[in-house]
Amino acid sequence: MSWKLTKSELDNENLLVNESLFSLGNGYLGVRGNFEEGYNDEFKSIRGTYINAFHDETEITYGEKLYAFPEKQQKIVNIIDGQTIKIYIDEEVFSLFSGEVLAFERNLHLDKGFAERIIHWKSPKGKEVKLHFKRMVSFVTRELFVVDLKVEPISPIDEIKIISIINGDVENFVDPNDPRVASGHAKRLEVMDVQCKDHLSIIKNKTMNTKLEVACVSTSTIEAAAYSYERNQSDSCIEETYSVNGAVHFTKFNVYTDTFRHGNAIIEEAIAIQKELEGKRFLDLLQSQEIYLENFWKKSDVKINGDRALQKGLRFNTYQLLQSVGKDPHSNISAKGLSGEGYEGHYFWDTEIYIFPVFLMTNPEIAKNLLLHRYSLLDSARERASEMGHKKGALYPWRTITGPESSAFFPAGTAQYHISADIAYSYIQYYLVTKDEAFLKDYMAEVLFETARLWADTGHMLNDSFRIDDVTGPDEYTCVVNNNYYTNVMAKHNLLWAVKVYEFLKEKNAGALNELVNRLNVTEEEVVEWQLAGEKMYLPYDENLKINAQDDTFLNKQRWDLENTPEDKFPLLLNYHPLTLYRYQVLKQADTVLAHFLLEDEQDVATMKNSYDYYEEITTHDSSLSHCGYSIMASKLGYKDKAYDYFIETARLDLDNTHGNTKDGLHMANMGGTWLAIVYGFAGVRVKESGLSLAPSLPEQWNALEFTIQFQGRLIQVHMEKNTVRYLVVEGDGVEISHFGESVWLESEVEVTFEK
Amino acid sequence: MSWKLTKSELDNENLLVNESLFSLGNGYLGVRGNFEEGYNDEFKSIRGTYINAFHDETEITYGEKLYAFPEKQQKIVNIIDGQTIKIYIDEEVFSLFSGEVLAFERNLHLDKGFAERIIHWKSPKGKEVKLHFKRMVSFVTRELFVVDLKVEPISPIDEIKIISIINGDVENFVDPNDPRVASGHAKRLEVMDVQCKDHLSIIKNKTMNTKLEVACVSTSTIEAAAYSYERNQSDSCIEETYSVNGAVHFTKFNVYTDTFRHGNAIIEEAIAIQKELEGKRFLDLLQSQEIYLENFWKKSDVKINGDRALQKGLRFNTYQLLQSVGKDPHSNISAKGLSGEGYEGHYFWDTEIYIFPVFLMTNPEIAKNLLLHRYSLLDSARERASEMGHKKGALYPWRTITGPESSAFFPAGTAQYHISADIAYSYIQYYLVTKDEAFLKDYMAEVLFETARLWADTGHMLNDSFRIDDVTGPDEYTCVVNNNYYTNVMAKHNLLWAVKVYEFLKEKNAGALNELVNRLNVTEEEVVEWQLAGEKMYLPYDENLKINAQDDTFLNKQRWDLENTPEDKFPLLLNYHPLTLYRYQVLKQADTVLAHFLLEDEQDVATMKNSYDYYEEITTHDSSLSHCGYSIMASKLGYKDKAYDYFIETARLDLDNTHGNTKDGLHMANMGGTWLAIVYGFAGVRVKESGLSLAPSLPEQWNALEFTIQFQGRLIQVHMEKNTVRYLVVEGDGVEISHFGESVWLESEVEVTFEK
Repeated sequence: MSWKLTKSELDNENLLVNESLFSLGNGYLGVRGNFEEGYNDEFKSIRGTYINAFHDETEITYGEKLYAFPEKQQKIVNIIDGQTIKIYIDEEVFSLFSGEVLAFERNLHLDKGFAERIIHWKSPKGKEVKLHFKRMVSFVTRELFVVDLKVEPISPIDEIKIISIINGDVENFVDPNDPRVASGHAKRLEVMDVQCKDHLSIIKNKTMNTKLEVACVSTSTIEAAAYSYERNQSDSCIEETYSVNGAVHFTKFNVYTDTFRHGNAIIEEAIAIQKELEGKRFLDLLQSQEIYLENFWKKSDVKINGDRALQKGLRFNTYQLLQSVGKDPHSNISAKGLSGEGYEGHYFWDTEIYIFPVFLMTNPEIAKNLLLHRYSLLDSARERASEMGHKKGALYPWRTITGPESSAFFPAGTAQYHISADIAYSYIQYYLVTKDEAFLKDYMAEVLFETARLWADTGHMLNDSFRIDDVTGPDEYTCVVNNNYYTNVMAKHNLLWAVKVYEFLKEKNAGALNELVNRLNVTEEEVVEWQLAGEKMYLPYDENLKINAQDDTFLNKQRWDLENTPEDKFPLLLNYHPLTLYRYQVLKQADTVLAHFLLEDEQDVATMKNSYDYYEEITTHDSSLSHCGYSIMASKLGYKDKAYDYFIETARLDLDNTHGNTKDGLHMANMGGTWLAIVYGFAGVRVKESGLSLAPSLPEQWNALEFTIQFQGRLIQVHMEKNTVRYLVVEGDGVEISHFGESVWLESEVEVTFEK
Repeated sequence: MSWKLTKSELDNENLLVNESLFSLGNGYLGVRGNFEEGYNDEFKSIRGTYINAFHDETEITYGEKLYAFPEKQQKIVNIIDGQTIKIYIDEEVFSLFSGEVLAFERNLHLDKGFAERIIHWKSPKGKEVKLHFKRMVSFVTRELFVVDLKVEPISPIDEIKIISIINGDVENFVDPNDPRVASGHAKRLEVMDVQCKDHLSIIKNKTMNTKLEVACVSTSTIEAAAYSYERNQSDSCIEETYSVNGAVHFTKFNVYTDTFRHGNAIIEEAIAIQKELEGKRFLDLLQSQEIYLENFWKKSDVKINGDRALQKGLRFNTYQLLQSVGKDPHSNISAKGLSGEGYEGHYFWDTEIYIFPVFLMTNPEIAKNLLLHRYSLLDSARERASEMGHKKGALYPWRTITGPESSAFFPAGTAQYHISADIAYSYIQYYLVTKDEAFLKDYMAEVLFETARLWADTGHMLNDSFRIDDVTGPDEYTCVVNNNYYTNVMAKHNLLWAVKVYEFLKEKNAGALNELVNRLNVTEEEVVEWQLAGEKMYLPYDENLKINAQDDTFLNKQRWDLENTPEDKFPLLLNYHPLTLYRYQVLKQADTVLAHFLLEDEQDVATMKNSYDYYEEITTHDSSLSHCGYSIMASKLGYKDKAYDYFIETARLDLDNTHGNTKDGLHMANMGGTWLAIVYGFAGVRVKESGLSLAPSLPEQWNALEFTIQFQGRLIQVHMEKNTVRYLVVEGDGVEISHFGESVWLESEVEVTFEK
């Protein structure tokens, strides 16, 4: 069943991976798929609960610290643990690592939004029970994490004891072999308050440096013939113990609030939420959850006919994106979502280039929120630009939570100036898809003006062309170069759109423009400068190879001998010094090829094809962000097999743990990439000033493919079969689209079919 | 008197600087110019005693650690303190910061090799004494540091108490505001042994990580009418107290030994050395010291007639070089010599390019030792090359003590591959000056072959030229570039000389060559490859500007607006992020201009002149290694005023603390540069395969200049006056030299005079 992820491994390696795969979240709150009762003692676990953007700061130490190197790093914090439930069967502790596991199944329901474990267990002394754990992080009440447990005695049992724990004594994950997570950084929270009030168990914690607070207010219900109850509290922990004879149904409702979103009275806020939930059973909550997801899948599901494994991979990825993406103005989507602590919960360009488009085309209100979050970082970005010696403009940080640059290695961090153009690109795409003029006026204009200023200040004119020196493009195996094609072409787009927005406002809303240019002190001369820089932007092109050069000197370097590089030397960055990598033509990920996808009209198809052929041979795909770009461009260029093969790599990357580090969290950008490889790849969707265009081409391996996209207020269904393509405007007015370059009018609710 | 440095400041800023200026050393042992009795409580002091190369290891922490980033950093250790002497005048403690200083003079005698303080002091209660401190680190017995003290009562005094302390509880200097010297790194030594044996006070310490041991065995003598004596020892300290009535003459003999040089029985070794010294008074030791220095100055003094301040600066610099340079195979000369802890006691390219030539031309046996030390690091350099992904060859570390790379920021560290060619260059210069064929066979060939291999593996052929990508040249304001002119031309020299040496041995000593190539597995094909790489080396040249380009893209960048950069923004590296600096044409120090000095025949004079004019305008001289290169090339190009002005900057850099950081130690490379600016600059000395050439041109500001140099066994005196130049072979056979390109035969002991 392709709506369900099922696993039953009990070895530690798989369990760690499954903690990420079975993580639950709603964009605000995330809980890793740990076992309520824990593993056995020798097994490692990354036991984690996180609130998006809820972070502390740690000091960055450098062997040699230079000017404007960030002094602090933000870090997502593992918060109060509400997962734990210990179970005793006649004094024997329940564990899947003792006694006999007669049956074990673990499911994640992508359509219903909960995870479960179904267990038939015989204790070392021979007592038999069935257990059914269900857990859910609510999409409807974002603060809520519920665990539901049924225990049914199979053999005669005198007493079943359920000990439910809320624990404030938590730490972030530490790997003593990894200096990046040195032990000094583990403990980020102090317990501020532990109290029992009526039926509520309450713990409040505070971060050590940022002084943010988080509360967990928990309550539980029990259904049993008879039970005794006891509650104990310590300095950091509250334990509830239910002792039962016979079958029991226990439910634990944990509500999490934080000072970021809930003001200072976070305990009171959580209690109020608990009050609203009063009387609701797990089943009721599940029902609301299902309705939420039904609505989501209606707009977001991509149906593949012909490959169930891929169908599952695709749905899993889309589902995890929904679980991870921030839906309030305080948060974005971090590189690992809310599924782990990898990359410290930071937001990267992953958002704009790999994830934002998924939401833009399916749930534009979520996409809008991502843009508003970036808007809220604009002051930090202005500050960073100034710190980096720029006279004007905004430089977005390479990695951050609330704005300050958190990257400790600038060649593959701060130097990736392209993130500012990537953010501008996402604003432009949003406008093209929504035509939201109020948004353009209120947010987009300011972001585009400030990023355009950055480019104008960073680059300079030489020989009648505008050049940008010493930046790093997406490919981190070549750093700090001049005229990176990707950066330059994205900056060009950024600059020319800033001018376009300026002209647009001048014509349509001169008052608003005046207010803005006065506030930002933007002059007409600057706008002329942006236009000139954009028009004269230097885009490296090699006459011999007839490709866009990755940068000014890339093609002069030696080619890395990938063929004779032993398998165990990949990923290269873990086996070669950066200088060694810089010295060769070898790519970690799509760079120029990605630019060709994002801005395909900047060069002709022949150049893109030559470039693809050239760069593909020297790309290692050591980054999980690489495959989807290659898949999309392979579709564009008619390399159907490659498009399909790269797509497969993205679709099951975490499910099959192909990068070996899924335990640290899921690869969110790649998950977006899966969707992009279908919609922008196989279906050839593009959104430009000229409107929406498609060029669908079904992979030979499949029978059919169907999905819907949002476009300027419509919901458009696209159905691809081997020899036909059908378009249907399901909601909204009729619209003109382009099908393989041909203009087509889609009347509302009238299906249009194209035969091959 | 230009043989004496005199100071009498008592403010803390000057005292800290004077600690460096008055530091004493002999290349093995160094003691900073602290006051025996200390300062007052609020004053800072860097109280230090060091043994060259005696180091511990500390961990380097990185915000983001990548492959082959060094994990540990070596660090020179502040060892057992033998300086301290407390003096009580009738129970009042002597201090220059209480009572009344009726007279105070402090001298460093460059001709006699000792420092002294002459004091007339009145205590707060009105007791008057005269004190005379003398201190010396012996050039004859390298382990010996002596302090000599005379106290003479001027007013009636009942008791003078002298408390002499040996203290093993020492720490390295820590600045809480500088993360590079974080407090965790301060304590590097543990006390292992404290004992009093006969008249000897003995302390032994051990470094925490490297487990090196150092011992101080001290004894003292006293001359007084009558005295009482007491000795106390604690866990880490020994105190001797002499109580005297009337005038007293006290001398303290500290002998330092270490497990690097003295085997494991370092206490016994130190005792044996004390035994040998028995019966010698301070005066006797001073006499040997003076003889040693007389011999040194005979070969090394440069006499300036016409400027006493410069004369003193020059002598001071040369003297400090002698004090700092290692004279055994375990040591080299660190960036700050033995005068402070700046740069952690590391050895850089400073040795080869700025300091080695001074000794090569004056004391070739010291120069040879520097080369032997580098030879001893060859295995480490081979290991580092392999770690950096090279299949063959040796990559010398940018900064090290015993071999491992200790640089924590690779763009301005490891990436400076040129250090390997710089070391090769110094071997070649040594051979040209000494014609020492045994040395060539035993050491030089191996170093040249292994460094040539590095270049062959680092670079590659493209369009019939050999190119070297992604290295950093001397100028650290532009890092990790392709075809840095300096690096390429030095690598060319290295490669072609490797071939030359190979051919030379093949002809002269085939057996030795065979043994070597078998051991190193050098093939004929490799030698052909070296030759090709050398001959085809790409040397960037700009047709428009008619200059050598610093690298492939340097001239395409924006020019930094130096004119409008506020004074307080210098040095730029403390006020701008490296990326900002990389983006502009701006130099920290001579780069291409330095290459033109080292290898002047690689381009014509016009190109050198154009390059000089071009680069000079954009050079900040933020590095203390910059002025001398510009001075030398200004001399070469006939810019007499510039040559003189830059010379002045080098001559008094530390005496006038123009870089503001002399307190951390003296700038050794610049001190070498002073001498180079005279000999290679004003006198135009060059040593090439064609022999010794000169092109003397006296600065207009002076009346005369005289110095001697060694050349192939001769001692040659050069005397320059306003209108004449006189050459005299003082020792050794006649020799042919070139005077302004003209061949001249110098008969032994026959003066040859040229009129202008």
